[in-house]
Amino acid sequence: MKFKTPQSLTILNELIGQTLVGNGDSLVTGCNEIHKVMSGDITFVDHPKYYNKALQSAATYIIINKNVEVPEGKALIVSDDPFRDYVKITKYYSPFVPSPKAVSDSAKIGAGTQLQPNVYIGNGVEIGIDCIIHANVAIYDGTVVGDRVIIHAGAVLGSDAFYFKKRVERDLCYDKLYSCGRVMVENDVEIGACCTIDKGVSGETIIGAGSKLDNQVHVGHGVVIGKNCLIAAQVGIAGKTTLEDNVTLWGQVGVNKDLTIGTGAVVYAQSGVPASLEAGKVYFGSPVGEAKEKMKELVWLKRLPELFKKK
Amino acid sequence: MKFKTPQSLTILNELIGQTLVGNGDSLVTGCNEIHKVMSGDITFVDHPKYYNKALQSAATYIIINKNVEVPEGKALIVSDDPFRDYVKITKYYSPFVPSPKAVSDSAKIGAGTQLQPNVYIGNGVEIGIDCIIHANVAIYDGTVVGDRVIIHAGAVLGSDAFYFKKRVERDLCYDKLYSCGRVMVENDVEIGACCTIDKGVSGETIIGAGSKLDNQVHVGHGVVIGKNCLIAAQVGIAGKTTLEDNVTLWGQVGVNKDLTIGTGAVVYAQSGVPASLEAGKVYFGSPVGEAKEKMKELVWLKRLPELFKKK
Amino acid sequence: MKFKTPQSLTILNELIGQTLVGNGDSLVTGCNEIHKVMSGDITFVDHPKYYNKALQSAATYIIINKNVEVPEGKALIVSDDPFRDYVKITKYYSPFVPSPKAVSDSAKIGAGTQLQPNVYIGNGVEIGIDCIIHANVAIYDGTVVGDRVIIHAGAVLGSDAFYFKKRVERDLCYDKLYSCGRVMVENDVEIGACCTIDKGVSGETIIGAGSKLDNQVHVGHGVVIGKNCLIAAQVGIAGKTTLEDNVTLWGQVGVNKDLTIGTGAVVYAQSGVPASLEAGKVYFGSPVGEAKEKMKELVWLKRLPELFKKK
Repeated sequence: MKFKTPQSLTILNELIGQTLVGNGDSLVTGCNEIHKVMSGDITFVDHPKYYNKALQSAATYIIINKNVEVPEGKALIVSDDPFRDYVKITKYYSPFVPSPKAVSDSAKIGAGTQLQPNVYIGNGVEIGIDCIIHANVAIYDGTVVGDRVIIHAGAVLGSDAFYFKKRVERDLCYDKLYSCGRVMVENDVEIGACCTIDKGVSGETIIGAGSKLDNQVHVGHGVVIGKNCLIAAQVGIAGKTTLEDNVTLWGQVGVNKDLTIGTGAVVYAQSGVPASLEAGKVYFGSPVGEAKEKMKELVWLKRLPELFKKK
Repeated sequence: MKFKTPQSLTILNELIGQTLVGNGDSLVTGCNEIHKVMSGDITFVDHPKYYNKALQSAATYIIINKNVEVPEGKALIVSDDPFRDYVKITKYYSPFVPSPKAVSDSAKIGAGTQLQPNVYIGNGVEIGIDCIIHANVAIYDGTVVGDRVIIHAGAVLGSDAFYFKKRVERDLCYDKLYSCGRVMVENDVEIGACCTIDKGVSGETIIGAGSKLDNQVHVGHGVVIGKNCLIAAQVGIAGKTTLEDNVTLWGQVGVNKDLTIGTGAVVYAQSGVPASLEAGKVYFGSPVGEAKEKMKELVWLKRLPELFKKK
Repeated sequence: MKFKTPQSLTILNELIGQTLVGNGDSLVTGCNEIHKVMSGDITFVDHPKYYNKALQSAATYIIINKNVEVPEGKALIVSDDPFRDYVKITKYYSPFVPSPKAVSDSAKIGAGTQLQPNVYIGNGVEIGIDCIIHANVAIYDGTVVGDRVIIHAGAVLGSDAFYFKKRVERDLCYDKLYSCGRVMVENDVEIGACCTIDKGVSGETIIGAGSKLDNQVHVGHGVVIGKNCLIAAQVGIAGKTTLEDNVTLWGQVGVNKDLTIGTGAVVYAQSGVPASLEAGKVYFGSPVGEAKEKMKELVWLKRLPELFKKK
């Protein structure tokens, strides 16, 4: 997320009251998770495993729970709880603002776009031209929808990321990473009834131009779906996974987080995808394999009794 | 779909401006896909594999992308793109009409039927007597609901078919087959929360009398569910499949398109059904087999290490 | 369910007009299914298999379809159809009352709680402080929600149990067990978009403090989820199952009814759980096994061709 009103790190630190190390005068222009940061961003790190990644990232400002040397051109905030303090910043810049009206006054709706009854269009939402937003659709604040998009009844765009930090010290409870990202739906997309598409934690969840989602598809936070993908009913895609262009997922497929499915890959129904898949191939099974190999496995499996009998 | 105001093929062809071959004077009374056409209907065919099926079907009028001899009693429209032109016709006869009100003035609601807050009841919907339509249910135009039906909150009836044509020539994008069918729910049905039931492409999706659907069930376009079926939560049934009477599908079962599950069949939870199933048997697995066979397979599988050790 | 206005068994029997055996003067204070009854409750039994369980249960009053000796301190109603008559009682004490307003006048909403547009809050619902109820959420009558709870758009709390009695004598149709339970959501819970949580048949469905549900999770009637559980997207949990504290279920897991998952258990994505699971272990597969064993099975399976070749 880019901040609409950037402030200096010194001012920002007043929100969280921790120890600023380095130059606090320059402006913090946005926030992001480590793997997506840009220059000017503030990020956080609280696990030794990721200290180096954070310190060497493009982020200019890092909230960290260790006293380390300040890298050239960066500044640090040393905190006993970077997660808690990062959430304070995202909440400050992207607070939850209740909507008094079903269609917010700050929403922009393009010409020719039809809003059916009982839709909810949050603050700052932008919808292009010639769309149909069917009844009872809910579109959270800040979502951007392109032209000629059809969204079927009951679909939800922009719900929060399912992203929590387990607090071992506090009886294993979970703290919420407050989401400040958004959903972007490109032109000519169709989204089925009761689909749920989470916003990114700090960045964007993207449904690429021309892609079609059947009913009850779940798209996790920060997922990027390429162009002209076909996603059948009841598919679930976990956070930050990427589908390249022309990917086809058949019904009830589940895809794990943080992976990539290559261009043109096809995954048969009910498959489970635990790791990235190469482009242009056909997959099947849970866990998934190349369909032709998995089909052989099924044949072997049926012939198992032969082996036991022959012994 | 039967047309409310049938017109001659000659007039109809003005919508699409292609080459009419044969007698254009008689009335086109409806449209349908090849496998459901009746006399008086117009249909389309664009793949050589189905030319004969279309030409020999009950359809009186066929949009086709090849110059062929006109069969006895039929007329043709020869088009470079039958899919595009068929969609023009379905859009003309069944255009999307926005609803200014949450409950359309043209909807008919039977005596004793309760509509809870925030429901959407589209144009021309008919609902019988003594139903309960819970909060936030969305019922699209033209849906027909019988008597004593209970529909739980967030359910969607009549969303569009997930039916697209891949356009290889245009960067693999998809064109939408505009749906003009409807959903019919018979008497004494119960539909769970956040179920999604698509309309037929040109015909009907039917939920048979006395059938019960748990929450989050997905029913594809043109599916026919028989009487007194029991469909547990999160089941998905793909387009044009038929469930005969008294079928039981347990939770998270997935059923492929265009197949038939015989009377009284039972399918255990999480099974995947890729092909038709005989009546009266019990099934399990993904892909599904008879439950007793699949249970044996599981036992063999556990004993595999024996085989490897003994060698 | 405890009755708000208890009545004597004699008066209650006027609703159903069956044969009262024993003392009808004392008050019936509530109703429940056999496995949850307390003293003062009325329950029903119609299968010989459960006669003894019912007669020896804590229930003071039993509707039964057999002439038996009245146990000490109890009274019976002998009926040709205990199911039908029990439903008459639950309907009498917990009738469906339509809501004229989207937020019922009898609902209590705590300070600092935000209701977004198009929510439905039924009769007698209680919501604590500092909650966010997002757009198009539906909360049925009598639901209780704690403090600092977040419920995402399209979620449904309190829909009816999926609980039917097959009537072999009437063409295999199903009669509905009318639900009179409720949903209780404890403090600091988060419920994802389009989740569906059924009320208990006669008791409570409970989501324990601090538990987090991702989108499109289905929770059946009478399920009890412990504290600080993590339930990923598209999980389905069937009726009356118990998750103890700190259980983690990954995406698309299915859990059968009437079982217990022990404290701290972790179940990997797409697994199917047909029986209770011990605490503290990691599980995988459909049907589920301990993850390390199932991983070995997968390796053996891939090596099957060796066995066939070597013979």
